[in-house]
Amino acid sequence: MPELRKDPVIGRWVIIATERARRPGVFFDSQKNIFDSGDCSFCHNQDPQILSYPQGDLAHRVKVVQSGTPLLLNDGKFHRKGHGLYDVVNDYGTHEVVIETPDHIANMADLSQDQIRLVFETYAIRYNELAKDPSFQYVIAYKNYGWAAGSRRIGHSRSQIIATSVNPFSAKQKLDGAKKYYNYRERCLYCDMIQQELEAKVRIIAETEHFVAMSPFAPRFVFEIWILPKKHDCDFAKGVVGQEHDLAKMMKIVLTKLKVGLDDPAYNYVIQSAPFRHGNTGTKWKTLADDYHWHIEVSPRLTRVAGFEKGSGFYISSIPPENVAEFLREVQI
Amino acid sequence: MPELRKDPVIGRWVIIATERARRPGVFFDSQKNIFDSGDCSFCHNQDPQILSYPQGDLAHRVKVVQSGTPLLLNDGKFHRKGHGLYDVVNDYGTHEVVIETPDHIANMADLSQDQIRLVFETYAIRYNELAKDPSFQYVIAYKNYGWAAGSRRIGHSRSQIIATSVNPFSAKQKLDGAKKYYNYRERCLYCDMIQQELEAKVRIIAETEHFVAMSPFAPRFVFEIWILPKKHDCDFAKGVVGQEHDLAKMMKIVLTKLKVGLDDPAYNYVIQSAPFRHGNTGTKWKTLADDYHWHIEVSPRLTRVAGFEKGSGFYISSIPPENVAEFLREVQI
Repeated sequence: MPELRKDPVIGRWVIIATERARRPGVFFDSQKNIFDSGDCSFCHNQDPQILSYPQGDLAHRVKVVQSGTPLLLNDGKFHRKGHGLYDVVNDYGTHEVVIETPDHIANMADLSQDQIRLVFETYAIRYNELAKDPSFQYVIAYKNYGWAAGSRRIGHSRSQIIATSVNPFSAKQKLDGAKKYYNYRERCLYCDMIQQELEAKVRIIAETEHFVAMSPFAPRFVFEIWILPKKHDCDFAKGVVGQEHDLAKMMKIVLTKLKVGLDDPAYNYVIQSAPFRHGNTGTKWKTLADDYHWHIEVSPRLTRVAGFEKGSGFYISSIPPENVAEFLREVQI
Repeated sequence: MPELRKDPVIGRWVIIATERARRPGVFFDSQKNIFDSGDCSFCHNQDPQILSYPQGDLAHRVKVVQSGTPLLLNDGKFHRKGHGLYDVVNDYGTHEVVIETPDHIANMADLSQDQIRLVFETYAIRYNELAKDPSFQYVIAYKNYGWAAGSRRIGHSRSQIIATSVNPFSAKQKLDGAKKYYNYRERCLYCDMIQQELEAKVRIIAETEHFVAMSPFAPRFVFEIWILPKKHDCDFAKGVVGQEHDLAKMMKIVLTKLKVGLDDPAYNYVIQSAPFRHGNTGTKWKTLADDYHWHIEVSPRLTRVAGFEKGSGFYISSIPPENVAEFLREVQI
């Protein structure tokens, strides 16, 4: 049974995949890249569906299934336990795969804007559904595209949704930081940042009716991009309502600029949304929180992270974000 | 002029290397790996020496020089400034390279135990020297071995020392976590952990007179190893005095086990020491701090970090640390 363990120093949760326990020799073999050889398991997926969207559409334009190699499973009851000075919880959670198109298309950049919209609408439906489980604290939807981004099978556009019973470390850091700013200024940090960036213009990559794509002022990775909704909301599934079409437009712009400008790089994106704040009734949850602002982080995987950065958390950006934004603004798509 | 920028949300400092600013096209070319072709620049290094150690030994057994591509430079005065809601400091700092041997040997595992001792003694001398600058808050000594660990030139064993005017993010996290534990328990978290691990035995890889090497309970990376001194000290350069010989013995054991057991993998190590706590006199500094415990983190680079992990800070360990420790205990060296 896998378990979640908490680093006793900084409080980061780690999934210890004991189910997948292997001798190191076996582990190394599994690192090899797998290329689809015409027989794509996502084209012909027959797994039980968690969701087919749009509902009633027999074309199965977007399909959600359980991951074949799930990191978390909700086949028990959530419980915490101690182990000397260490903390452990069981593997209560879900791990779903979103098959983004019935067609064998590798990169989301090559999907139609309409199809991309369906994918983000699917995420929102799953967020709202998973929020009903009072044991879940957090849901994260993300994509690994290409080997360097952590994907082993290349060929069919898909993404993943994980629900966890603990609050992931980065989410906690972001929430804490945004809260400190809010407590001091009584304004949302992200709203202020969007205003400052739209005035300065130098780090803006693209702007649509409802969204801004920018290079962050202090990026962790070269070509890191933040896509921020102009309208304040801490919660992705709530905030995106009515803006799905415009978000799909922005995603298509950003992903196509990356593909064209950087020669089809590996990339990740992650939706950063507030954790569920369950009320006393258990299944009720509130999205108060003037202090957090949902957004999407897109990270092409172009560089390796060296010892200094890993050890110090002190990242190095070899291209200033202003140059990155200028370069991407100029990429013709 | 490079500058240091602070992420406005979580407070992570990032070095923006504007001096190295490149058009993206140029940037990609520079990613290629460089193999030494007989003409090793470290074998024949003629750069001005910051330190040659042991002093007076004409064989130059260990040499410290300034980095040819420094990330930080102390050619001005340290200053902070604001930029709307953002924070910036200039690039005040140092970036030194430690050439660990006059011989063309690639992996520190293949140096003699005596030579490894000289390297760690060299680090300690530089820590103590750099601590005299009241603008420096933190010094980090680290090694990138192999391409996947962030090293581009392979062939001659060396490591790096960086001094910074701000407190790196990971150091801050570790200090905060250890302090919380200390405030609650009135004991050092690391001392308690060493005791618990020595009793449980399952995550211990090796033990010497003064040091313990273990797989951490909740590792961030597969095969991550922590080397902890049994004697409490927050400061590496102070704590290691009289234990240099034993530390070299432990490093030789751990690095050789990695080389033999994992087929010469790329790896990083980082010395985690407390930041300088400068007193009022400027150049005086104190190493009080019962709450922090210096140590070394060794990370073989075997896996990629995927989108979920990057986005959530929620890491996945595909081999339980107990299996890792057992495997490494059994590697014959």
